[in-house]
Amino acid sequence: MFQLHLQLAKDCRDLGRLALCRLLLMNDAHYPWFILVPEREGVREVHELADTDRTRLWEESALLSRALVKGFAPHKLNIAALGNQVPQLHVHHIVRYTHDAAWPNPVWGRQPAKPYYGAEAEKLHALMRDLLGDALHGA
Amino acid sequence: MFQLHLQLAKDCRDLGRLALCRLLLMNDAHYPWFILVPEREGVREVHELADTDRTRLWEESALLSRALVKGFAPHKLNIAALGNQVPQLHVHHIVRYTHDAAWPNPVWGRQPAKPYYGAEAEKLHALMRDLLGDALHGA
Repeated sequence: MFQLHLQLAKDCRDLGRLALCRLLLMNDAHYPWFILVPEREGVREVHELADTDRTRLWEESALLSRALVKGFAPHKLNIAALGNQVPQLHVHHIVRYTHDAAWPNPVWGRQPAKPYYGAEAEKLHALMRDLLGDALHGA
Repeated sequence: MFQLHLQLAKDCRDLGRLALCRLLLMNDAHYPWFILVPEREGVREVHELADTDRTRLWEESALLSRALVKGFAPHKLNIAALGNQVPQLHVHHIVRYTHDAAWPNPVWGRQPAKPYYGAEAEKLHALMRDLLGDALHGA
């Protein structure tokens, strides 16, 4: 049975589910940083997914990307499946601005996470509900 | 008309073409590091590709990933579309080992590239020809 990796559960807020993936918000206010986690057990690499699941993952990635463009007007999106530290397949979707804390470098390992304060994360959750509409369940 | 970004042309060896993407080898012997560049003009983000091209990109990514698993037995693959420095859409596929120069961190910005020496890059090119077979053209 699929269970979210403990490290992801610890580092992120659960925003709900798309058809295949759990949608998470990384608890780091430096960047609007979202993660898609296919709800499939024991998968580490994208190509290990069944073809239909792989297709769906990248459809959900495109859906999320379009929502992020609409909601955040990023200068760039960064999309990455790394998994060197957390083996459960997860795909980062990070909104980048040319004035953000790490630009033009990737965000990993730049500085400690800055946890969201007060109602900030709940506001982002509400925005994502608006942007994704019926595609987002259990949110 | 599609033209490979000058920075990618400078940093990489051209290994040939898949149906949609140019396949490049980053000239950094620290890691077997490959890049897929969809031969489409003016595209910066994955979701900007037409649906059929996006599907094909991720099919070619899965094909490349399976070839890398077979040829390099990685401990992990790192797949990423960042593009903060080179705006032309390109997708990194990096073979990672737990004993490599940056593990467990992402590879970007860790140390200067170590150019391939002598026939090393040509050997890798030959290996990729073998692994990808008929899928790789103009190689």
